[in-house]
Amino acid sequence: MRTTVGIIGAGPAGLLLARLLHNAGIESVVLESRDRAYVERRQRAGILEQGTVDVLRAAGAERMDREGLRHDGIELRFDRRRHRVDFPALTGGKSVMVYAQTEVCKDLIALQLKEGGPLLFEAEALAVEGAETDHPRVRFRHKGVEDVLECDYVVGCDGFWGVARAVVPAGRSSTFERTYPFGWLGILADVPPSHDELVYARHDRGFALLSMRSPSVSRLYLQVPADTDADGWSDEEIWTELERRFETDDDWTLRRGPITQKSVTPMRSYVHEPMRHGRLFLAGDAAHIVPPTGAKGLNLAVGDVVTFVRALTHRRETGSAELLDAYSATCLRRVWQAERFSYDMTTLLHRAPDATPFEDRLQLARLERIASSRAAETDLAEAYTGFPIG
Amino acid sequence: MRTTVGIIGAGPAGLLLARLLHNAGIESVVLESRDRAYVERRQRAGILEQGTVDVLRAAGAERMDREGLRHDGIELRFDRRRHRVDFPALTGGKSVMVYAQTEVCKDLIALQLKEGGPLLFEAEALAVEGAETDHPRVRFRHKGVEDVLECDYVVGCDGFWGVARAVVPAGRSSTFERTYPFGWLGILADVPPSHDELVYARHDRGFALLSMRSPSVSRLYLQVPADTDADGWSDEEIWTELERRFETDDDWTLRRGPITQKSVTPMRSYVHEPMRHGRLFLAGDAAHIVPPTGAKGLNLAVGDVVTFVRALTHRRETGSAELLDAYSATCLRRVWQAERFSYDMTTLLHRAPDATPFEDRLQLARLERIASSRAAETDLAEAYTGFPIG
Repeated sequence: MRTTVGIIGAGPAGLLLARLLHNAGIESVVLESRDRAYVERRQRAGILEQGTVDVLRAAGAERMDREGLRHDGIELRFDRRRHRVDFPALTGGKSVMVYAQTEVCKDLIALQLKEGGPLLFEAEALAVEGAETDHPRVRFRHKGVEDVLECDYVVGCDGFWGVARAVVPAGRSSTFERTYPFGWLGILADVPPSHDELVYARHDRGFALLSMRSPSVSRLYLQVPADTDADGWSDEEIWTELERRFETDDDWTLRRGPITQKSVTPMRSYVHEPMRHGRLFLAGDAAHIVPPTGAKGLNLAVGDVVTFVRALTHRRETGSAELLDAYSATCLRRVWQAERFSYDMTTLLHRAPDATPFEDRLQLARLERIASSRAAETDLAEAYTGFPIG
Repeated sequence: MRTTVGIIGAGPAGLLLARLLHNAGIESVVLESRDRAYVERRQRAGILEQGTVDVLRAAGAERMDREGLRHDGIELRFDRRRHRVDFPALTGGKSVMVYAQTEVCKDLIALQLKEGGPLLFEAEALAVEGAETDHPRVRFRHKGVEDVLECDYVVGCDGFWGVARAVVPAGRSSTFERTYPFGWLGILADVPPSHDELVYARHDRGFALLSMRSPSVSRLYLQVPADTDADGWSDEEIWTELERRFETDDDWTLRRGPITQKSVTPMRSYVHEPMRHGRLFLAGDAAHIVPPTGAKGLNLAVGDVVTFVRALTHRRETGSAELLDAYSATCLRRVWQAERFSYDMTTLLHRAPDATPFEDRLQLARLERIASSRAAETDLAEAYTGFPIG
């Protein structure tokens, strides 16, 4: 097999990349190790930045505009108080969209299968060869049969556990990492969300997040110790703990409903530098991980692939590899801002197991600052609604 | 001896308090354990917030306006780059004043001796008694002779090591503390400052700060390990290290000159709650310590005493103790914002001995954010030029 851009991984990064390349008239092949049903079921993030919405809309993701929920703010809850951050008022009109990553993937898969290039499920990438040459190749096994995909460029969109990143020689790369001593116990529940915007709660017992998948499905999270087994929490215990952490001084109440899914997400910050080696480019989780608190994971992946497509288009239109050469540095500037913001949101709201009384007070002072300074609040709103791409 | 307000300590908090009370027609007596020469020599902070300048000006500190240096910004230096934060442009006209604490003390001592109430040097407070009664008393020893000062109110302005704080029963108080694994090696040098505004430098080798006492005297600091002996650094080593940490990509150079003083300051964050017990009130370092990075120590003390004088005046004019009762909570709101800012400036700029590569990159991303977002920069400028009093 031969194509222009070999794409490893059919998560949102790989699928969007294939779509953007198709729209730019550039051939690609997507290799995905899992089957379609698995990819379409995978629960991940659900907050799309303004820039991500714009890119997906231009890419043809029509259902997003019909079914996604535009959110103009979030609520910070601390000390039994409620403070709303008004995004459009602080950012000159920006907002975010609640539309689950799994729906983004379904839409992009449908578009790709209808009018895009090859998208092979159950096609496991085994190795990337010749990244330093003009003709890199991806060896892969498709439904038990080994094959080779010959390309001009390879983009590793194969996530944190994928093979692509390992292609960059250790001597030429650096990794930056932080693990957190807690994770998120997340549930899906068949009950209308108890608030029409996301609620980020800082509580002495730990962080809690109220989110939603749709007007009838709630998505809720509890900070738990990193090694927690989701099955160790009964539904009753989860609702009781959520109620405690969302407590307010007014008559706000949390609606309960049947829990349909329960899982624990670990929290990690990770960056691999550089994001390019020869003709291999890394995008999304293959190069960087953020803790979910800032809702930046999917949005970073979108920035990476947009940057790659711009650079490749520039190469084809002008003959200049300037933007391709700048790919890693361009992406990393935005990546580090998202890493910073995700780390700050995480430490602002979570209770570290070894937190000192001084650190507890600092958290409250920070929240108080955001609630009382338009500058501090704007800083948060700008970051939440998204850093510019490129 | 008998007075209305007994003041322990003739640092800037106690001296300003005596002056403000005098101007409000309220009697006070100041007890200071050291002699006058010692107090007038003590090197401390040198950055006055806009609000502090306004208070000192109204209190009659005329020399400040003649000799103080108005500063409209600071420079952040990182990655060999220089970024200026323009205070008036970001805060609607606010600035700060460089005028050493030691000069403030000299001015206030002169005013007090000329027209204020008693100011006793070498008068060591031994104990505060009856804080829970209407007639608290300070036992003290003045030049070897024990005496008692009977008061309506006692204000402990006697610093971190003073006796006043210990009066609050342990069971009714909480302390919040953080020590840092580094300190500042500070020098005074007889050389004009190499830059006309303060320069805060973040460097892989550690933090450095360029400041000044006057147009002909530089004040410079180097981050050093907490247990450093100042005499272990030769003048040559100090200048060489300063040059390294202030390095830029342009032709900026550091002027050298004779070093006239050398000392190491430890770095600590500390808050004692509450700041009042009965008729004993704590002000300044007696209740809270900040690391010097945010230049907030003196300015917090000024806020405390202004709050106390307002509350006492309100009591005398209206009969209501409402503001006196709110003293601790009122001061602590501002204290915690200053603690937060001082902690953030410290962690933004210092290199922790156990910093991970991830944390190094976070620092740079934070500085990059400040340099590229007006909101983030405004947040810093507002905090640096000062939070409102009360």
